[in-house]
Amino acid sequence: MIPLTMNSTLLEPQQKQSHEMDAVEILLVEDNENDAALTIRALKKRNLANNLIHVNDGQQALDFIFAKGEYAGRDPLHLPKVVLLDLKLPKVNGLEVLRQLKAKEATKIIPIVMLSSSQEESDLNDAYKMGANSYIVKPVEFDNFSEAISHMGLYWLVLNKRPKSC
Amino acid sequence: MIPLTMNSTLLEPQQKQSHEMDAVEILLVEDNENDAALTIRALKKRNLANNLIHVNDGQQALDFIFAKGEYAGRDPLHLPKVVLLDLKLPKVNGLEVLRQLKAKEATKIIPIVMLSSSQEESDLNDAYKMGANSYIVKPVEFDNFSEAISHMGLYWLVLNKRPKSC
Repeated sequence: MIPLTMNSTLLEPQQKQSHEMDAVEILLVEDNENDAALTIRALKKRNLANNLIHVNDGQQALDFIFAKGEYAGRDPLHLPKVVLLDLKLPKVNGLEVLRQLKAKEATKIIPIVMLSSSQEESDLNDAYKMGANSYIVKPVEFDNFSEAISHMGLYWLVLNKRPKSC
Repeated sequence: MIPLTMNSTLLEPQQKQSHEMDAVEILLVEDNENDAALTIRALKKRNLANNLIHVNDGQQALDFIFAKGEYAGRDPLHLPKVVLLDLKLPKVNGLEVLRQLKAKEATKIIPIVMLSSSQEESDLNDAYKMGANSYIVKPVEFDNFSEAISHMGLYWLVLNKRPKSC
């Protein structure tokens, strides 16, 4: 477990104003604290984590995107540039989050990258059939993990384009 | 216009056996010969173009994927790892190719990256709503174009995972 200082890369709803929530570029949905810490560290190294919010379960992810619950003050028209979505999550699992985001016109345009330890054919198939934009298998080895995440971050934040809103 | 030698990176159906068609990893659908040449050159530099086929219009792209017409001998279960799809194409345009590939369970799992000169909101919106996995605006400047393509190629061929078949 990597110790993390609480700073702007780790927004907590109660600490942040709604306008800061509207600037979020990456929504990281990850219940494994170690994987989350490694992901954030790899993105920070490339200066890609300035506008990142990390939530721990699928319900928080949906609340954030649809500006409900503790994120009710957020402007739902401001969508992140990418959602990094763990496949297996508490409360609402990753595939169900994916399904709900891809079912609505307004949120269908958000690129969703599944991050998973599984490379089961059935998981890959389900993810793509539900409209996942990409699927990354988390490398087990630290250096590979870090490199994969920073490459992925650069791709979706810098290279990929998506419409500003629906 | 960059001169291209005809080699294994530029498969022509009449020159290649069907088993070679089945090894295709990248289907490049691009009617602009200059953009196609630059794309192939950038991918070759990273050794990513060994199994690339280039077609010039949307109908050829559909024929290739569905193993019809001049590609009738191909095994349709072998799908490319990624389709690089120009938005504006002769015969069948890029969005219609996208729609047809994403409409079928068997081909929905193929990652489709739109490559376009346009960054019109409406084009971006249409592409994502029809299920494009990613959308890259072709950089005008040579070095940027080359870098963007090689980064994109590495992402989809090396980092991204997709199911082997549906």
